[in-house]
Amino acid sequence: MCRAPIASLDCMEEFSGTGGHLDFGRSISLGSNPALPLRHGSTPTPGLRYKNLGKSGLRVSNVGLGTWPVFSPGVSDEQAEAILKLAIESGINLFDISEAHSETEIGKILQRTGWKRTAYVITTKVYWSTKSEERGLSRKHIIECVRASLQRLQLQYIDIVIIHKADPMCPMEEVVRAMSYIIQQGWAMYWGTARWSQVEIMEAYTNCRQFNCITPIVEQSEYHMFCREKCELYLPEMYNKIGVGLMAWGPLSMALSDTQNGDKLFLPKGSFKTKSFSWTEDEINRNAALSPQGSWGKDRIEEGRRHCDRLRDLAALAEKLGCSPTQLSIAWSLKHEPVQCLLLGATSAEQLHQSLQSLQLLPRLSSSVMLELERILENKPVRPPMISTLALR
Amino acid sequence: MCRAPIASLDCMEEFSGTGGHLDFGRSISLGSNPALPLRHGSTPTPGLRYKNLGKSGLRVSNVGLGTWPVFSPGVSDEQAEAILKLAIESGINLFDISEAHSETEIGKILQRTGWKRTAYVITTKVYWSTKSEERGLSRKHIIECVRASLQRLQLQYIDIVIIHKADPMCPMEEVVRAMSYIIQQGWAMYWGTARWSQVEIMEAYTNCRQFNCITPIVEQSEYHMFCREKCELYLPEMYNKIGVGLMAWGPLSMALSDTQNGDKLFLPKGSFKTKSFSWTEDEINRNAALSPQGSWGKDRIEEGRRHCDRLRDLAALAEKLGCSPTQLSIAWSLKHEPVQCLLLGATSAEQLHQSLQSLQLLPRLSSSVMLELERILENKPVRPPMISTLALR
Amino acid sequence: MCRAPIASLDCMEEFSGTGGHLDFGRSISLGSNPALPLRHGSTPTPGLRYKNLGKSGLRVSNVGLGTWPVFSPGVSDEQAEAILKLAIESGINLFDISEAHSETEIGKILQRTGWKRTAYVITTKVYWSTKSEERGLSRKHIIECVRASLQRLQLQYIDIVIIHKADPMCPMEEVVRAMSYIIQQGWAMYWGTARWSQVEIMEAYTNCRQFNCITPIVEQSEYHMFCREKCELYLPEMYNKIGVGLMAWGPLSMALSDTQNGDKLFLPKGSFKTKSFSWTEDEINRNAALSPQGSWGKDRIEEGRRHCDRLRDLAALAEKLGCSPTQLSIAWSLKHEPVQCLLLGATSAEQLHQSLQSLQLLPRLSSSVMLELERILENKPVRPPMISTLALR
Amino acid sequence: MCRAPIASLDCMEEFSGTGGHLDFGRSISLGSNPALPLRHGSTPTPGLRYKNLGKSGLRVSNVGLGTWPVFSPGVSDEQAEAILKLAIESGINLFDISEAHSETEIGKILQRTGWKRTAYVITTKVYWSTKSEERGLSRKHIIECVRASLQRLQLQYIDIVIIHKADPMCPMEEVVRAMSYIIQQGWAMYWGTARWSQVEIMEAYTNCRQFNCITPIVEQSEYHMFCREKCELYLPEMYNKIGVGLMAWGPLSMALSDTQNGDKLFLPKGSFKTKSFSWTEDEINRNAALSPQGSWGKDRIEEGRRHCDRLRDLAALAEKLGCSPTQLSIAWSLKHEPVQCLLLGATSAEQLHQSLQSLQLLPRLSSSVMLELERILENKPVRPPMISTLALR
Repeated sequence: MCRAPIASLDCMEEFSGTGGHLDFGRSISLGSNPALPLRHGSTPTPGLRYKNLGKSGLRVSNVGLGTWPVFSPGVSDEQAEAILKLAIESGINLFDISEAHSETEIGKILQRTGWKRTAYVITTKVYWSTKSEERGLSRKHIIECVRASLQRLQLQYIDIVIIHKADPMCPMEEVVRAMSYIIQQGWAMYWGTARWSQVEIMEAYTNCRQFNCITPIVEQSEYHMFCREKCELYLPEMYNKIGVGLMAWGPLSMALSDTQNGDKLFLPKGSFKTKSFSWTEDEINRNAALSPQGSWGKDRIEEGRRHCDRLRDLAALAEKLGCSPTQLSIAWSLKHEPVQCLLLGATSAEQLHQSLQSLQLLPRLSSSVMLELERILENKPVRPPMISTLALR
Repeated sequence: MCRAPIASLDCMEEFSGTGGHLDFGRSISLGSNPALPLRHGSTPTPGLRYKNLGKSGLRVSNVGLGTWPVFSPGVSDEQAEAILKLAIESGINLFDISEAHSETEIGKILQRTGWKRTAYVITTKVYWSTKSEERGLSRKHIIECVRASLQRLQLQYIDIVIIHKADPMCPMEEVVRAMSYIIQQGWAMYWGTARWSQVEIMEAYTNCRQFNCITPIVEQSEYHMFCREKCELYLPEMYNKIGVGLMAWGPLSMALSDTQNGDKLFLPKGSFKTKSFSWTEDEINRNAALSPQGSWGKDRIEEGRRHCDRLRDLAALAEKLGCSPTQLSIAWSLKHEPVQCLLLGATSAEQLHQSLQSLQLLPRLSSSVMLELERILENKPVRPPMISTLALR
Repeated sequence: MCRAPIASLDCMEEFSGTGGHLDFGRSISLGSNPALPLRHGSTPTPGLRYKNLGKSGLRVSNVGLGTWPVFSPGVSDEQAEAILKLAIESGINLFDISEAHSETEIGKILQRTGWKRTAYVITTKVYWSTKSEERGLSRKHIIECVRASLQRLQLQYIDIVIIHKADPMCPMEEVVRAMSYIIQQGWAMYWGTARWSQVEIMEAYTNCRQFNCITPIVEQSEYHMFCREKCELYLPEMYNKIGVGLMAWGPLSMALSDTQNGDKLFLPKGSFKTKSFSWTEDEINRNAALSPQGSWGKDRIEEGRRHCDRLRDLAALAEKLGCSPTQLSIAWSLKHEPVQCLLLGATSAEQLHQSLQSLQLLPRLSSSVMLELERILENKPVRPPMISTLALR
Repeated sequence: MCRAPIASLDCMEEFSGTGGHLDFGRSISLGSNPALPLRHGSTPTPGLRYKNLGKSGLRVSNVGLGTWPVFSPGVSDEQAEAILKLAIESGINLFDISEAHSETEIGKILQRTGWKRTAYVITTKVYWSTKSEERGLSRKHIIECVRASLQRLQLQYIDIVIIHKADPMCPMEEVVRAMSYIIQQGWAMYWGTARWSQVEIMEAYTNCRQFNCITPIVEQSEYHMFCREKCELYLPEMYNKIGVGLMAWGPLSMALSDTQNGDKLFLPKGSFKTKSFSWTEDEINRNAALSPQGSWGKDRIEEGRRHCDRLRDLAALAEKLGCSPTQLSIAWSLKHEPVQCLLLGATSAEQLHQSLQSLQLLPRLSSSVMLELERILENKPVRPPMISTLALR
């Protein structure tokens, strides 16, 4: 075990030595990190809080269920329903949906369970591409997309419709008018964005103000220990100035359902564009052996090795705190105030349960622990100094 | 009887010596105050007037029916329907509803009676809490709430949707946009507020103007002889400046259906947060006996005793005017011009009838009587002097 | 016959010596005024034109059918339908409705005939009173009123909803927002006013501009030889400045269905507030005989006699032109450019036919004839001189 | 053959010597111009691109199907369906409809084929006249028109509603509000104009901005080698300043289905107001023979002859390029950047296929070829010099 330290924090899961489905946080190979003690059945879950999303009046649980892993191929209908039930029972009131298949499946579960519509918040997305029939982010596409989602969900309205990607070719006026239309039709309560730059969010806000449209309330953004800049530096500014909140997701919290390949775990390539994660320590060593003839430069190999060292340090710290590295990672994300809702994924109720234990870890993340973490990560983002154009003369 | 003078004016009812349901104003124990002569069946009721609510075009009767006591446990379906029928026959055209149960019951009565929709005005409320599923006053909650009300009422629209409490966590823009949406959907004709501060009302108005939304037309506020400041000092300013009118309710006029406990009547604690009312003369005496070791200070005991004296003086004045203290209290409220609609409650048609007699008392409330009342009450509100910040230097 | 010349021009009808229903313009007693030659069946009717109503894009025939007399008690269902059919066949594309009964009846006829919805323009009204259930002109009343009209008409939309009277107690913002709502719901295409002062129309326009609502396109106003000031002096200004057009009606053109009382015809008192019309030459003579003890002063008797002389002169002029006084009156109204649509009433198809002949009279109203008419009427309205407040010093 | 050179470029088709339906671009009489090689079945068609229409987010194929010829009398239902199927298979995603009959027929085909609503863009038109029932371009007419179109199309919405002609009598505010209404009702996604002047388009835009309405995205305009000024000089300015794009049609590309009269082809007179096209070389010669007594002046005859020479030169150039004159003409139009979508008509799938070959011609239209074309056409539009009003003094 652990013969091959790897670049991805996710791959720490391999340390746990479990086969088949991931067993987040039960134990890790770098020692005997025990998972947090279970407090099954306690509702609401200790540490679970409700926060206003952005500066809107909508209050959501500080963790939401990312449903993409829930309806992945390896999970049976019964398991999926069990995950949603555990989420609701745990006090989670937000389900985030990312594609058509999940909408259909969640629609069926909502019909079966008959949960009160007031009890949960559904967020789903408008996707678009330049290649498919739905070319670009047009009013036509937005409206067609939302109507199709409503049919699949068998709901009268979606709580938050998220536009998954800004379209530089589509005028922002068209987008904000279309979103206002969706809301005025009663098809949605709010709208938000995912993977938009702060300039794009600001442009949307400006257009809303100009045309008296309803402003977006949330940006969904990747956020974890190795992807911090946007969420720590720029989104808080968005929140303060225009009330757009942060719903965070990350490969760590989204409960990847990839099968483990021996002791190497690969992140799903391209799915989240997590470029810096797609290689393992094996790869580093293999490329180092090829050096200097190999395609990797010396710097890249060095950086890879430093990264592996960081992951070992994190695992050691998690052990000291009595949790799994994944639980540490989840707690670390939640510790950051801008995160109003952190999406957790799961391929089993047990896994969701494990992740929810992270909430109890928060009080233990004292300022000294947080400092220690910063020392390990060495990536606390800082704003580039503002250089006066006058000074450049 | 009257062995224990009490702090609440309501408890004067105990003087009447009746058991079971309250028999407002028939007679009171401090003498032989006769109730006003009945003029049953006369329509419209003498003294009943129609006024524009706020500066809106909607004309409502100067007394409305507060339906919360009507559908309280002790009242049968037949009695409830009789109360509503008497209200309509008396010329009352406004029914104020405060909770889901009353909506369902009124819905049934409206179906049975088949009254023309144009003949009455329904006001109902959006409630919210931080604890229930409906966490906070969000667009989601407002819309879900109103849809549910419409279903219970079996109506196509509510005349005025009242937001029961401002939510400091919900941006006012969201609230006024949601209310405009409700009205644009045809689900409501107007909207109003209840228990909002004048600053909150003003903020709502400003947001309506900024976003071209429909402004609120009414604030529902507690108003009676011992709760005067907001309605006499600040709401008239709201009316003059932004057209928001006043619909008043008070424990006196709302026909409390509490059972009497011997000669002591307790106001329903916490229901209206009428803090200054929840103790009786017994309590005062008991605490006075404990003094100075007791929890009540000397000042509080003194204030309690003075209050009891005031109540006795009021009862004496009512006797002189030939009415019950309750009738005097209702007439006194109606005498104040800012009150465009006073909500009366009732647990029986007879009680509503008694309360309506108060309308005939108004001409008898001459300026000398009103002066005498002010002398008794000693609480005519005055604005705090405006202190220049310059003067503070 | 004609023993008693009368004060009302309407009563010229008595000259025709017909009994029962009015037979407008066939012949008059002051000579042998022949009616204009019939050109039955010619479609479109000679002289019938289509004009934009106000500065809107809606084109209506220069005469519209006022349906109030059409559905008056003496007219059978077959006759009513015949009138509407003649109107449509003659090229009239506007039906003006004034009360609930006519709406129901027209609804039935429209169902029976199956005319294309695009072929006609329906105008109907929002009435209100301070006495009935529908107290004042509120959003509630406007919406309830229009919904009821649509049901009676069995139509999906009304073309123009006319607010029959301004309500000084209802804020103009509420009115223009309600009318915009009606139009946004698709229940109406346009809105207009009836019997509003130019100040009220201007206030409505200002509010529309302030709140980005749809502006009114037409004012319905009384207009005839003896009621000229508003339509000739002030409404043209409204048209030029804010695009509000004029739809005119008058007792003369509305084909009163009152029964004749021997040779005296009384206008329906109060129906149109045509104060100066409600007395006959008989009355004048009777009051002159009582003078100076009678209730009428010398001036009033003199004025009455002068008026009767005018009517005789008009009848003589009509005879010279080869038409009836009524036809002259209709043509005279149409000759005035501000009148974009003149409402004609009828209690029979024949009567409508007679009225439509007036259109052919227009070319004969040369400037010399118009001058002669002004000489007879002596009431050409002029604006009061603008007196500078400086000059008053 | 070719005994009578003709004025219209279309009439080049006669050169091809085919009888019956036009056989665009197979061969032309002035030599052996071979049609472009077929690449049947290749999807997407080489050269077919998707462009944003105007500055909207809607992406359409650079060629659209003009359906007017598709549903002309000589084309069977099967043929029509075959044309639409070929269009879709070729990657064309825009169908432009011009009259009621085509709407009904396309509605049926869309029902039969069951194509996904997201896969195609329907544009249809609001027509109006001063003569028919639908007098002028009013809110009433626009709404009635669009509702009727939706019924005929059996669709929930049209993608782009085009107003076919500006109505100088209808205020622009009414038009833009009506179009916004259409879009707010969900009956259309976008709106555009056809045959509006740039001043009218600018006025529409200004009104949209003033009243916060949705701006038009496209102007449909005639564009071909002999009608260039508006599309080359003025519409690019509209695109740059207010984002209105250009959808072009021309007699050449619209696949006229007129029967050929021997070797003379007449353009459908009046259908597109293509004044400069309605005469043939025969006519020129006939009129030249009559000269100077004939109705044509010397200049006109000269101009006619020069035009015929130009057509011969164009045909020669097409031959050199290995395509038909029609294909050259289509490619030439597409070569001009302002054309975001060129409408092609067809009366058979084969003809559409031939026209689509033109797309492969574009790379061959080098700058030297384009220069040669300009030399032949002698009509490159230039803006009139801006003359200062000062200079005029």
